[in-house]
Formats: sequence, C-alpha cells, structure tokens
Amino acid sequence: MSGETHVPSQWYNLAADVPYDFPKPLHPTLDRFVEISDFDWLYPTECLKIELGEGDYGTSPWIDVPDRVLEEYRKYRPTPLFRAHGLEKYLDTPAEIYIKREDLNPGGSHKLNTALPQAYYGFKDDCTTLVTDTGAGQWGSALSMACDVFGLKTVVFMIRKSYQEKPYRRYLMRLLDAEVISSPSDRTETGRSFLHDPDNTGSLGIGMSEAIELVKTSESHRLALGCMSYYAVLHQTVIGLETKEQLEALDRAPDTMIGCVGGGSNFTGFIGPFVRDKLDGKPIDFIAVEPEAIPCLTAGTYRYDWADYTGLTPRVKMYTLGNKFVPPAIHSGGLRYHGKTPLLSSLVHHGVVRAASYPQEEIFKAGPLFLKTERILPAPESSHAIFAAIQEAKTAKEEGRKKVIVVCLSGHGYLDLQGYASVFGL
Amino acid sequence: MSGETHVPSQWYNLAADVPYDFPKPLHPTLDRFVEISDFDWLYPTECLKIELGEGDYGTSPWIDVPDRVLEEYRKYRPTPLFRAHGLEKYLDTPAEIYIKREDLNPGGSHKLNTALPQAYYGFKDDCTTLVTDTGAGQWGSALSMACDVFGLKTVVFMIRKSYQEKPYRRYLMRLLDAEVISSPSDRTETGRSFLHDPDNTGSLGIGMSEAIELVKTSESHRLALGCMSYYAVLHQTVIGLETKEQLEALDRAPDTMIGCVGGGSNFTGFIGPFVRDKLDGKPIDFIAVEPEAIPCLTAGTYRYDWADYTGLTPRVKMYTLGNKFVPPAIHSGGLRYHGKTPLLSSLVHHGVVRAASYPQEEIFKAGPLFLKTERILPAPESSHAIFAAIQEAKTAKEEGRKKVIVVCLSGHGYLDLQGYASVFGL
Repeated sequence: MSGETHVPSQWYNLAADVPYDFPKPLHPTLDRFVEISDFDWLYPTECLKIELGEGDYGTSPWIDVPDRVLEEYRKYRPTPLFRAHGLEKYLDTPAEIYIKREDLNPGGSHKLNTALPQAYYGFKDDCTTLVTDTGAGQWGSALSMACDVFGLKTVVFMIRKSYQEKPYRRYLMRLLDAEVISSPSDRTETGRSFLHDPDNTGSLGIGMSEAIELVKTSESHRLALGCMSYYAVLHQTVIGLETKEQLEALDRAPDTMIGCVGGGSNFTGFIGPFVRDKLDGKPIDFIAVEPEAIPCLTAGTYRYDWADYTGLTPRVKMYTLGNKFVPPAIHSGGLRYHGKTPLLSSLVHHGVVRAASYPQEEIFKAGPLFLKTERILPAPESSHAIFAAIQEAKTAKEEGRKKVIVVCLSGHGYLDLQGYASVFGL
Repeated sequence: MSGETHVPSQWYNLAADVPYDFPKPLHPTLDRFVEISDFDWLYPTECLKIELGEGDYGTSPWIDVPDRVLEEYRKYRPTPLFRAHGLEKYLDTPAEIYIKREDLNPGGSHKLNTALPQAYYGFKDDCTTLVTDTGAGQWGSALSMACDVFGLKTVVFMIRKSYQEKPYRRYLMRLLDAEVISSPSDRTETGRSFLHDPDNTGSLGIGMSEAIELVKTSESHRLALGCMSYYAVLHQTVIGLETKEQLEALDRAPDTMIGCVGGGSNFTGFIGPFVRDKLDGKPIDFIAVEPEAIPCLTAGTYRYDWADYTGLTPRVKMYTLGNKFVPPAIHSGGLRYHGKTPLLSSLVHHGVVRAASYPQEEIFKAGPLFLKTERILPAPESSHAIFAAIQEAKTAKEEGRKKVIVVCLSGHGYLDLQGYASVFGL
C-alpha cells in the first residue's frame, strides 16, 4: 500500500558485522557446539544454517531475500515512518518523535516479516506443518498467515493465560485454519507435567518445549520461532533498513532508538542497521524496554541457558532469568519470556544497547494517551516502547534539547482490548 | 500516512447536482416541511442546514471542508486504493478488483470522515456533549475519537446485542472516555418501554430515539448521526473523490462500484462523485448490498417514514421496512436499520443504483476468503460488498470480460472476531 519501491531486497546480517564475539550455541546436554546434524529434524534447514552462521551467514553482512519472500514483502511493505505530532504537542517537548508503523502489517504486528521466510524455508524442505508457541498471539497469527501462503499447516501452542484472555487472536488463527492448543496441554510430556496445576498460566518457554516435542513425533513437522532465534532477528532487519532510508529522506539522524523486548527480535532488527553507525562514533542511545516483572536484561545474568523450559533446545549465551522461570501473569503476553536473543544480549553486555524496565501500571497508561493523541492503540508490548519514548521526550524538554527519538511500534492493541478493560476496569 | 496531497478540500454536494427531485423532510407530526427552528435544539446548526439544503447547500455542488476538519483529515487520508491481486488470482477472473481501504482509518472504519465534521460543528455551537446510537460500534468509536479531538463528551447508546457481543468496541469507546449505554436502557421513555422484554436485541431505530430523548434533557447536548443523515453522505464523498483521482491515476474507469448499505453513507459517499458520469452516459453499474434479513431496498417501500423508532425525527422519503421494524439479530450490527438514507433511496428509485441482498451464511464466507487471499479481515458489514464483488468477478469470468470492479471496504473485522467465532463455531 505504500508503493513497491524501497522494500529491502537484502537482510542485514549484523552477526557477521559486529566486532564482538557472538558465542555459538552449545549442544543441549553435551559439552560441544551444536552441529547441523543435531537439529536438522527440528528447524527448516535454512533457518538452522542462519542460526549456526554456516557459509555466507557467518561472513557476509548482506543476505539476499529470496524472490518468493520479497514478492510477499512487497504486498505490505515498506511500512510508514510516522511523526507523532500529536504526542509531541501534548508533551510540549522540543523532541521529534518518529514511529515505525509495524502495527500496520497484516496480522497487526512485526511478526509476519519473519513468519514469511520461515514458512518459505519449511515449504522448500517439503515439510507439511510448522509448529510453534505464541504468547499474545501476534506470532501465531502471523505464522498462520504465512503458512497459508505456502500451503503448510500450522499448529500453535498458545500460553494458557492468553488462550483464555485473548480469544480474538485465537479466532483469527482459527480463521486461517491453524490448530490452536492451550499450553500447558495434554499433548506432550512437558505439558502434562503441569496439568496438576490449574493455576499455571503457561509461558513461552513451556510452549516452546511442547512445540519441540510435537515436532519430534513427525518427519514432516518443523519448528518455527517468533523471536528468540537469530534468524528472526535477521529477517526483522527489514524494519531497521527501511527506517534508515526513511530518516535519511527526512534529513534526520536518530539520537535515541527505542523498542520493546520479549525475545528481542523487533528491537534488534530495528536497531541492527544502525549499530555500525554507533560503533563508528555516532552517539545513538539504543534503549531496549522490558517489563519490570520480567527483568531479563536489567536483573538477569549473562550465561548459557536453554531457550525452552524442558531443555530441548541448544543452549545459547544470553541474559536470562533461568529457563525454569515462569513469568508472572502480566497482560503483555508477548514479553513473558525468560531470556533475550543472544545477539541482543551480546550488545547489552558490550554496552552498545542499554536496557530499561517499567511496571505494568505505568506502561498501560501510555496506551490510551497514544490513542488520544495519535489515534493508534498500541499493543501492551509496544506500549513499553511508547512509555519509554515519553520519558525521553520529557527529559529532552527539561534539558531544552532538540532530539530525534525513533520508536518501533511493534504491533497494535485492538485485539488486546480485554487486557485494557481489565487494567482500567472498563 | 499516504502523504498530505490529494485529500479533498471540498465535499461533493450531490443533492444539489442531481436532476431528480430530492424530497424535503417533513415535520414529525405536522403536515409541512421541516424548518430550522423545529430542530435547532437537536442537531448542530451546520448539520441541520446541510440536511435542509439551506443556502449554498441547496445550490452549490461543492462545499469547502472547514480548515480544522481538513487538518484532521490530512492526518489519516487519503486512504489507499488497493488492487486485490490475490483475490483475482484465486477467482481466476479477467476482472480487476480494486479496494478502497476505509478499514485503515483510525477506529477501523469510514465513520471518522463524518464524525470529525459533526464534532467540529458541535464544538462551534458551544455544545458540551454529542449523543448518538451505534450498531456494531464503528460509529460510536469514531465519534468518541472525534469528540476527544474537539474537547466534547460523547454518550453512546449501543444496541444491546452489540453491547453484549462486541465488548472490544465498547472498551475502545471507554478508553476514549465515552459513556456507553446498552440500548434499550432505563434512561429514556423509549428504552423503558422495552425493558419488560429481556430478549429485545435493540435496534438503531430504538437507539436513535433514546439519543434524541437524552438530547432533549439538556441545552448543551446535540445529536450526532453516523449514516442516515444527508450530512453524513456529504462528508463521506471524500471516499469517492479520492477513489476517482486514484482510478484516473491508474488510467482506469469503473465498470462496477460496490458497497454495503446500513443507512447508506459509505456507499453513497463512495459512488456520489461518479453519479454524474453515469447520468452523462457512462455505463457504471452501482450495486448497493444489503443483508437478506433486512431488505429495505430490495423489499421495502419508497415512502415518508421516521428515522427513529418512536417517531421523534423528521419524516424523510426513503426505502423503509417501517420505523417499528426491529431487525433480526444478524452479526452485521451496523446494517440493522429499517431504512436507507433519502438520497440513496432516490437514486435507487430512479434506477441509477441497483440493490442486491444476500443471506448471512453466504456473506460470512467472504471474510476468511479475503483474509487468506489479501490478509485483510473485512467487517461483516463490508463482507457484503466483498461477496457481491466476488459474484461480479465470477460473472466476468463466465462472460470472458475484462471489467473494473471497485469496492468500498468500509471497515475491518478484527473487533468482530466474536461474530466470526459464532458463525464458524471456532
């Protein structure tokens, strides 16, 4: 809808372009790095190659987007970069606030950007079904859409709290013919181990273990992952590449770039193409915002850990609260995850990115404010980024400083209205 | 988001430009035409002038959009005209199908186009509160947004079935600080007369009577109307004017133009700027699509009738099922209305527009199909238009005829997922 020009035809492979060590994944239980043959039953082959930095993925900063994926990107990208004049006026700030509108994507979030290539790679491998976990349902909806494009089936383990409280995203997945299972479920060993506790709200870690167990049962099933993988980050660099071109067209350079982090893919894809600029001396403040209740970056430890609850995935080096951490039942279901994607963790570890965390009560107020000033209702996840941008714009006002703040609006909140209703007692 | 050019700065005043008689409104009970002084307590003054064709409104084909409204239009318009390649491919049709994306507007429907000027006119009249009725909640959400812009309060009578079954739109209105009342309610005489019947689902006619009764109780309250009024039609001509320019830029002329009709404002605003072309000899097929369960145009009579249940409004000449008709509980809450706006009725009466009606079961299937082929979930109301477009595209295929079909997608269905879930048993 924004024309067919300027959709990036290459992803930016930050992992091959940063001067830091980017620790390789370890085998789940053995004391060695993961090899392709350990997990070719689990991931689509190309995804695994990206994850392990095989071939070009280990060396080349630019990776061609496959034609078939590019064709799909061109149906909805580039997304607009929108100036939040209304919010600026309300805050009476000298800062300029720009919003990258990933909420306008089909499915209402950034997730389709990686769902499409993952489904395409699954299709190339002749698999019949992609299996995944989802928190708020943004990822599950996007994957259902992408699988539909490539003729694959989708099975989604949706964390119990969201399954119950966000029925609309579940209905959307069902309209796209996905099978949606409340997690913990009776379908897997991991799930069954939680069934004695009806109060267990589920978590992305548990859902991921369930998805992996299900993949194990069939030759033709593969796992898809919305955020924790490096391939999700690579695919999401379309966000940052477009933003860069759009800012340049406006003759603006970012002082501050802000995104919310669940696994970390939207934020890392958003800032990725700007990281070299910072390393080359441009003073960009990258702020990764997480919920106070799940403080991986702000209070976790940087160490090897499993991406799932049971310990079936490779171990990756990341900021983590421990893979057994079951996050409290906050309304931002997409952020209920115990770790942060390794590349982001490494950037935080090296001081390139800073982390901030805020309590849910504060975060939620940013939603209606943004609705009233810009007529966009952010997803509760994305409200973390909006809230942080408001704090930065207030600081700019106190300092009397002109400043360019760029925010990735990862998704809209129209299917999260039940959460808003609960928080505000509507 | 589509740039600030090409937003129409004038509305097209079709009523002053058609060669047909456009019967004037009659007093609710007396045998004479309505005068301004009869209803200056009810409508914002400017709305009433438009309705009665006073001054320029009676003579000039072009009406300036007030600067303050134009400023707001420019924040979200023009909406894209999108080619439905995916649907065309699925149908294997030689027809080209174009979609005017009013679903992308803030609030998710075309309604903001008239909510903004109505709130502005209320603000100019120093009123404090706009009162209205809403079916599915698209109109109530848009009015709440517009009133928030101009510092007015909003009171919305939401028909009971939608109040219960579409809580998300209710939450959205509440986030915008609107007061939302389930109708029939105990707040008005009309409402109370239905309270003995807990199975009464409400209707737009009953809601309108309740809104009017409430306006009567306060000097500072005025009525806002989403569709039945002529002023809503006038404001919605922004849709048609943009579509015309967009089709010309693509070097296309429409063979068929299709929209759904509740009161008729989105459809009439959409086709309005093309009506003269048809009268001047261009063979455009205008198709107004209504639910089979509420067949105003296809089985109603063309006569004077009240716009509300109780008979408090002026009587207008229109196709009607009678103002006491309480529509069956279909899921397209926005179409549950007993009449069609007078100008549209007159165009149907003179054979300029033809009407079509389809059963809900058929209509609903168009939603997931459009979701899968175009990744857009239409509102159930808008699915009427999509469904009719599919029939036309199939006919074009049978006839081996290239054909340009243009559809007004009046709104998205993401807040109607409960309706989809009920129909498909998700």
